[in-house]
Amino acid sequence: MIKIELDAEFKLSKPLPAEAKQDISAMLEEVNKELFKKGSKEDSEATHLREWKIVKDVLFLRLKSGGQVRAHDAVLRLRRPLAETIGKKYKCGIKSTTVKNIKIEIQLGEKPEKEISLPFVENINIVDDKAILILSELKDLELEKNYLTKIINRFLSKISAQKVHGKAETEKNVRKSEKRTDKYVFQKDPTQELIDLGWVREFPGAGIWTLMPPFTALLKAIQQLLIDEVLKPMGFDEVVLPRLIPLEIQRKKGQLGGIPEELFWVCPPAKRDPEYFEDYKDYVEITGECAPERLMEKLRPPMFGLAYAQCEAFYDFFNKEIIDASKLPFKFYDINGPTWRWEAGGLKGLERLNEFIRIEVVYAGLKEQTIKIRDEVLERSEKILDKIFDVEYRIDSCTPVYLEHAGATEEKGEEKEADFVKTYDMTAIIPFVTASKEETELEISSFHVHTDFYMKRFHAKEKNKKEVWTGCVGFGPSRWAYLFLLRHGLDYSKWPKEIKKYIGDKLPGVPEMVTWPKKKEGDEDNKK
Amino acid sequence: MIKIELDAEFKLSKPLPAEAKQDISAMLEEVNKELFKKGSKEDSEATHLREWKIVKDVLFLRLKSGGQVRAHDAVLRLRRPLAETIGKKYKCGIKSTTVKNIKIEIQLGEKPEKEISLPFVENINIVDDKAILILSELKDLELEKNYLTKIINRFLSKISAQKVHGKAETEKNVRKSEKRTDKYVFQKDPTQELIDLGWVREFPGAGIWTLMPPFTALLKAIQQLLIDEVLKPMGFDEVVLPRLIPLEIQRKKGQLGGIPEELFWVCPPAKRDPEYFEDYKDYVEITGECAPERLMEKLRPPMFGLAYAQCEAFYDFFNKEIIDASKLPFKFYDINGPTWRWEAGGLKGLERLNEFIRIEVVYAGLKEQTIKIRDEVLERSEKILDKIFDVEYRIDSCTPVYLEHAGATEEKGEEKEADFVKTYDMTAIIPFVTASKEETELEISSFHVHTDFYMKRFHAKEKNKKEVWTGCVGFGPSRWAYLFLLRHGLDYSKWPKEIKKYIGDKLPGVPEMVTWPKKKEGDEDNKK
Repeated sequence: MIKIELDAEFKLSKPLPAEAKQDISAMLEEVNKELFKKGSKEDSEATHLREWKIVKDVLFLRLKSGGQVRAHDAVLRLRRPLAETIGKKYKCGIKSTTVKNIKIEIQLGEKPEKEISLPFVENINIVDDKAILILSELKDLELEKNYLTKIINRFLSKISAQKVHGKAETEKNVRKSEKRTDKYVFQKDPTQELIDLGWVREFPGAGIWTLMPPFTALLKAIQQLLIDEVLKPMGFDEVVLPRLIPLEIQRKKGQLGGIPEELFWVCPPAKRDPEYFEDYKDYVEITGECAPERLMEKLRPPMFGLAYAQCEAFYDFFNKEIIDASKLPFKFYDINGPTWRWEAGGLKGLERLNEFIRIEVVYAGLKEQTIKIRDEVLERSEKILDKIFDVEYRIDSCTPVYLEHAGATEEKGEEKEADFVKTYDMTAIIPFVTASKEETELEISSFHVHTDFYMKRFHAKEKNKKEVWTGCVGFGPSRWAYLFLLRHGLDYSKWPKEIKKYIGDKLPGVPEMVTWPKKKEGDEDNKK
Repeated sequence: MIKIELDAEFKLSKPLPAEAKQDISAMLEEVNKELFKKGSKEDSEATHLREWKIVKDVLFLRLKSGGQVRAHDAVLRLRRPLAETIGKKYKCGIKSTTVKNIKIEIQLGEKPEKEISLPFVENINIVDDKAILILSELKDLELEKNYLTKIINRFLSKISAQKVHGKAETEKNVRKSEKRTDKYVFQKDPTQELIDLGWVREFPGAGIWTLMPPFTALLKAIQQLLIDEVLKPMGFDEVVLPRLIPLEIQRKKGQLGGIPEELFWVCPPAKRDPEYFEDYKDYVEITGECAPERLMEKLRPPMFGLAYAQCEAFYDFFNKEIIDASKLPFKFYDINGPTWRWEAGGLKGLERLNEFIRIEVVYAGLKEQTIKIRDEVLERSEKILDKIFDVEYRIDSCTPVYLEHAGATEEKGEEKEADFVKTYDMTAIIPFVTASKEETELEISSFHVHTDFYMKRFHAKEKNKKEVWTGCVGFGPSRWAYLFLLRHGLDYSKWPKEIKKYIGDKLPGVPEMVTWPKKKEGDEDNKK
């Protein structure tokens, strides 16, 4: 339950003559009966005019409302009849609209666990299950852009996020393979072994790896297997999705306001001018230091976030477009390079990276189409995992991660009613605790149906107002490759033929230097 | 010709007794005869002690030198005999070493065109062809890291860069194809046509494009053709080279001190903590604004530059390693996604992008191996351009761009003596002026031999001290695809079979919406 009290001030283009007061009084009486109530079922939920006066060129109002016709919306509704009343007859206009001394009272289900703060809100006072928000002023565009309602919604979603946070993850197993971890060639993390043999090489401490020929060959084979067995037969076409995602698209996707702490942000130079950077260059060349702080001073604020989900551009593709449902579904995949997630200190082995490769599979269609596509992608790729990889795994239904990426607060309450699963996770079971997380498993893919969540965020419509849904699947071939090596080891002759057919008679070798790799092919010790 | 004058101060760990003066005097006399002269052919090029004194715990010296044993190096040379003289007998050590009142006189070939500034240098005074640099102080590590010599070198290379800048580009045609531009299906820029047909779609104003199925199919076909006809037969293996390049590797490669104004810089969040970003997120969600300045306040200084040359990690691969020449050559290629160049306002059509795809080909070997590999890659890819693409082109030998990327100042004078070409450019001739540059041509690939330039920068050695060279070739398949469309047009039935064999019977279509693309397959107008 919401109660709002505020003062509104309309600054006029000039002082009105005394007689105008009569006209305004009549108009306000009318508005207070009609426009301030329209759309509200109960009188207490609408807006009520409590007082008003005109002083020189300013019209002051004191308003009070419930939550259905909110006082700030009433202020905006008032602008047209006010302009009509003073326009023709007195040649007077409205110069600006301000609301002041805003007090919002909200009845909560329960007392929140933590303090809450919000921009524009001067004070939030919570006593038991009642919250009072005080704002001093909002003006013109801030009113038109509906800040006040967004502030109330943000406040409420922060409270419910606190609750969600307390709950256990809503993960539910759907099915699992037989036990198989005793078949795995590696019973412990092979990352060090792969480093010693030169299959991979890390940039110092960066969670970013160069993949050398044998590992690359495996990764590309897995990629091609997924394309040939999953995507091509289902009619997916390849597209090239960009990796530098403008801030505005990050915002619409929800990542800017949702998880900015997990993205890498990209700043171009403030000027594309060699001389502008000259002192910095001199400093670098003379001292041999990188001086990142000095570099930062010469950069523009971020223009892009590095692609986090890989599918960002797919949603932007629908931006403000009108869709014809008869042309659906659309089915694409992208393998145009890596995506990035800032894992900070959480990096250890090859299983968790700041920069990693994925096949991103995206689709749009009517509800049934979208669910069917997702289910078939899952089914086909599960078959590869089961029959060719021959690893232990499970499929779970779980919290849709795409909601978390957008702040985790949308679509409350919907979960229970759904007649379908939004997200399936595919998790491989491994015979040791990973270096980066205390667990003996590795999520290797997830399979999503987003409902019309992104279509709404990107303002796409269907021409007959049908609901268009989207979905995506992220395959992580570098994790698949890591998993494959756990199970099948490094002896190429023992790898399954379905993978070898993409590589040929021989696995490409590692270039040898005197000092690298640590273990050479000669002093072999590969078969564990 | 260089003359240096400076004062040196050795701060000792305690005042010395009067008798020590005798010992120091003897030592200094000896040093001034031997150590200050060693390595210099002429006396005037060595260092000379002019005055000295001890006051309490500080030893003062006044030195003067030419350019061979430079005064600041002499100061460092003095540390050991000084420590020996005062250590055992007086139990005294050196606490710090400082040089002050540094005056460097340099005889120039000619007067520089523009003013020059340098960090640490307080004043640069140039009269005719003589420059005097004044520095007030350098201390300990700054001396050990040889700042003064680097400052002198930087000064000299800035002067010679001014001269190079004035010259015309040293481009020389090697060979060219017959005239063919009248065969081109497009006689004007097809970018708008490709947009209207939905083959490509740009992020608003960003020089970053989503490539839709038909364009992607062409691009991938060209990529595969290059791999099959050029790289595989030559024994190149695929590797995955990272795209987030740490600042230190950018520095070693030369791009940090060379062309920081052309790179995108990547800043991670200052904390990977949702609460740290909470006020920013609230602001974004309530106002609908991206507020890049606010975001920037929450970021760390840049940790990475986005890959500019794509081969950065290849050189780092050799970092401080010892190579065995008998294992050479090494031959790799990478197609792990796009690279990035900040083109600022220079963006117009599909021919110039901020984010673009390349096949990067890298190799290392002895001199002859490296040149031979580069020449064969050129020869094989030229054949494709000539026979399959059937476009007009020319091959030029020209200024090695990799030197420009590292500041353009290394290896002066070498150019003339070379018995080989460092860089070939492959340039296609087109029948119209491009949107981004006033020219009727398009560079589509370049072919480099770097000599041991990068091996030195990354401190790699060969075990028998042989010189190891590197080289690289960048193929831009998106430019190749653009060029292909100019020549062969959009009618798939008329494309050469060597490309079609990678695509199949039908070119994949464009997804259709009511509002996009502007031109549908139905209202065809494709054949120009």
